[in-house]
Amino acid sequence: MENKEEFMNQAIELASESVLKSYGGPFGAIVVKDGKIVGRGQNKVTSTKDPTAHAEVVAIRDACKNLNTFLLTDCDLYASCEPCPMCFGAIYWARIKRVYYSATQHTASHFGFNDGWIYHEVALPIENRQVQFIPLLPEQGDVPFKIWDTKQNRIEY
Amino acid sequence: MENKEEFMNQAIELASESVLKSYGGPFGAIVVKDGKIVGRGQNKVTSTKDPTAHAEVVAIRDACKNLNTFLLTDCDLYASCEPCPMCFGAIYWARIKRVYYSATQHTASHFGFNDGWIYHEVALPIENRQVQFIPLLPEQGDVPFKIWDTKQNRIEY
Repeated sequence: MENKEEFMNQAIELASESVLKSYGGPFGAIVVKDGKIVGRGQNKVTSTKDPTAHAEVVAIRDACKNLNTFLLTDCDLYASCEPCPMCFGAIYWARIKRVYYSATQHTASHFGFNDGWIYHEVALPIENRQVQFIPLLPEQGDVPFKIWDTKQNRIEY
Repeated sequence: MENKEEFMNQAIELASESVLKSYGGPFGAIVVKDGKIVGRGQNKVTSTKDPTAHAEVVAIRDACKNLNTFLLTDCDLYASCEPCPMCFGAIYWARIKRVYYSATQHTASHFGFNDGWIYHEVALPIENRQVQFIPLLPEQGDVPFKIWDTKQNRIEY
């Protein structure tokens, strides 16, 4: 029943529309569950002034709203381009099952998007990154986790 | 003028409050510009049913809204815990200048949060990841980028 190519074409059309309508960069994504589209996203970084409004994040948030859950366990994501590390993390936290992608991070980088550089940076030891990550009050950071650890009826994710 | 320890304590207090008020996991973050707090975030994954509502993402979105921009170029982020790869990506896309963090990804993993695993996965070759990333219609994915490349008055980010 499921037409993977059709879903991908729709993700790519969303990407083209995002540029043509000046929503943001050339990226689109769709979340599919049981052969049906349950979430859609287009890059809206510049139009909504939100650097996290990548197509995949927008599509995941849309699917979660539509399905009333923070877990997309049995869902697939169709992305017009290989997800960046931010979207990669969102995919893992949402427990997306499979990711289909069309263009690659190398294409994104070729056209001026920093995907490749961020993939390089995220894999580096913390002291070698271009953005400084500085430890501060390390001993106090355990406190919220200890409260969490003893909390009754906590909802894990 | 800037009191780094005070900002970090506020981020940690936001993290504890997130657990105590059942907003979500034990994470808080603050964005600071010119010695003033311009954005605040608490983990709200479970209460808002949004897997992307990590403290850092929420704080970055809040700061962008308050400053009316998608670029936080001269801002620092104070996070109660070392950011996960999703938040790492958000930090890079927002052009955050420096990141101060208290607890580490190892503490997060110890208390049941998948940060360490996702850091491991994001650095793997695409074919070795636990979540399948599958190329589909690779030749069509260039189309939105080519539209982008020829667009007049495009806003880069």
